Amino acid sequence: MIIDCHGHYTTAPPAHKAFRDAQLAGLDPPPAHISDDEIRESVEANQLRLLRERGGDLMIFSPQASSMEHHVPDPVVAHSWARACNDLVSRVVGLFPEHFAGCCQLPQTPNGALNDSVTELRRCVEELGFVGCNLNSDPSGGHWTSRPLTDEYWFPLYEAMVELDVPAMIHVSASCNPNFHALGAHYLNADTTAFMQLLEGDLFARFPTLRLVIPHGGGAVPYHWGRYRGLADRLGRPPLDSHLMGNVFFDTCVYHQPGIDLLGRVIPADNILFASEMLGAVRGVDPETGFNWDDTKRYVDALDAPEEDRRKIFELNARRVYPLLDARLRAREVRAESWG
Amino acid sequence: MIIDCHGHYTTAPPAHKAFRDAQLAGLDPPPAHISDDEIRESVEANQLRLLRERGGDLMIFSPQASSMEHHVPDPVVAHSWARACNDLVSRVVGLFPEHFAGCCQLPQTPNGALNDSVTELRRCVEELGFVGCNLNSDPSGGHWTSRPLTDEYWFPLYEAMVELDVPAMIHVSASCNPNFHALGAHYLNADTTAFMQLLEGDLFARFPTLRLVIPHGGGAVPYHWGRYRGLADRLGRPPLDSHLMGNVFFDTCVYHQPGIDLLGRVIPADNILFASEMLGAVRGVDPETGFNWDDTKRYVDALDAPEEDRRKIFELNARRVYPLLDARLRAREVRAESWG
Repeated sequence: MIIDCHGHYTTAPPAHKAFRDAQLAGLDPPPAHISDDEIRESVEANQLRLLRERGGDLMIFSPQASSMEHHVPDPVVAHSWARACNDLVSRVVGLFPEHFAGCCQLPQTPNGALNDSVTELRRCVEELGFVGCNLNSDPSGGHWTSRPLTDEYWFPLYEAMVELDVPAMIHVSASCNPNFHALGAHYLNADTTAFMQLLEGDLFARFPTLRLVIPHGGGAVPYHWGRYRGLADRLGRPPLDSHLMGNVFFDTCVYHQPGIDLLGRVIPADNILFASEMLGAVRGVDPETGFNWDDTKRYVDALDAPEEDRRKIFELNARRVYPLLDARLRAREVRAESWG
Repeated sequence: MIIDCHGHYTTAPPAHKAFRDAQLAGLDPPPAHISDDEIRESVEANQLRLLRERGGDLMIFSPQASSMEHHVPDPVVAHSWARACNDLVSRVVGLFPEHFAGCCQLPQTPNGALNDSVTELRRCVEELGFVGCNLNSDPSGGHWTSRPLTDEYWFPLYEAMVELDVPAMIHVSASCNPNFHALGAHYLNADTTAFMQLLEGDLFARFPTLRLVIPHGGGAVPYHWGRYRGLADRLGRPPLDSHLMGNVFFDTCVYHQPGIDLLGRVIPADNILFASEMLGAVRGVDPETGFNWDDTKRYVDALDAPEEDRRKIFELNARRVYPLLDARLRAREVRAESWG
């Protein structure tokens, strides 16, 4: 089974965007009326089609990352927007339960209290059956006014995650800073930054079962793995394996073979989760290969690694990091067997 | 000949630091009195010793990067600090002219006018014989309040660089933002950010002979080369080779073999300049190899590449990107021949 741990609903029907526009215009609109057919169509022609074509089975699916827009400071707006986005993802999951599992957007605001985020996380996990959340480490959107991930500011959220047994993908949203292109700088910088914050701190001594997925192949981290091993040493931190690698995971959203080869060479197979981010940052066909840039399964297939490692990357790690997904898959297998 | 294009005077005598402390305390101290012997000692025991031990010949040498501290807003302070730092580097070069070439610190301030930077660049190149400069793309020190490198704000400096025929290494300084560890996040983020700004813009159409070196192996860029090729395509920019690679260069400050292997695999040999950053971010011995992390010559030696490429990386590219260095080396060769 092949699980893609990082897909976004970037193709939501236009009415959803119109709802958001009305919201940002200061109105208090109700969430858009969107039919099941519209949702089916928006997914079948896009993520689901590509998942099938490329041989994937299931995608951990979250609202569009760049549209989370946590920089909008009004907590009421943040809350109703996150709710609407998550409800829509939940409907996708309900329509295609074998192919999608929900991962929620949190109603964060810049330095705002995390109560609403905890409440929405609980709702999504306990009522909607979601298996994880996206945590924005820079709600300011490129101004980086928030506190590092090791700061106690974040602890209420970590406590809820631990209790609910769901991981977070550390994923920033749109950039409001002209220095940072969202897809080409802000996302990767946030990934790199998150890892270094975790290296400097001691978060997993306090939360030993907390699990964080750093997307986009871990930003710059695997390429500079020697630098991080050396910095851990220089800063008097424990070796990375014991300090971080029981709790931190990288996805495979790296859009060329040499990058995936490096990832597989330096990062333990236990810490890599297959993902494509489709339909995400990079669309279209790489003229050098003739295949889509974000068809990352090809790169993992071509990785010089034992089949056992590939199975971890494609399936087993995701089931371990997202135990609620694993539970659902097991229930389905049991059901399938009893039917058989 | 082996040229290391990225070394900092991180071992300057303590009196220099005391001068800085007095300056930051609001005094107007004269630059420290430092003897030639003190300078010799500070370099012979450190950078020069390592250069010799590791088989290097010459280092392009600049003031300590993290101490540039361009976030200090007073332009008078910035100017006298840059002058003192550059004068000290100039004395190192004067004492060991075969082993060091100067690269200057600019007296930048957050969003301050660049007149003083242009003046100091001219002084360093025309009077002190420096061959390049370090340009801080985020003088705010991690708050990123400045304008992208493609903004006309920077043009006066680019015009002077083009006229003087010197490149800039894009190198940020200390981080004042608790989110960003300077060595483990801020530096790499700045590298990644610079490349994406250049990709988005069209700077080299305006300045076709401008040359920029992105240090630390280009941040996250080579690891995500497919992402950048795909983004260029998606954003309607020309292919990277024609758009950027005549003007942008990456150094080899990547502290493990797999990282250098990736760099050599995806980036044309014409665009890679040997560097170690010693004594810089990462010090000490990698227990996995038994050698110093920043002994990057070993990784380049082990690179699976033709000798011709290695010669470009070790020498020829640096002489091409830093033509004033090349001119000096040629003069020395001619002199050596006439003595011979």
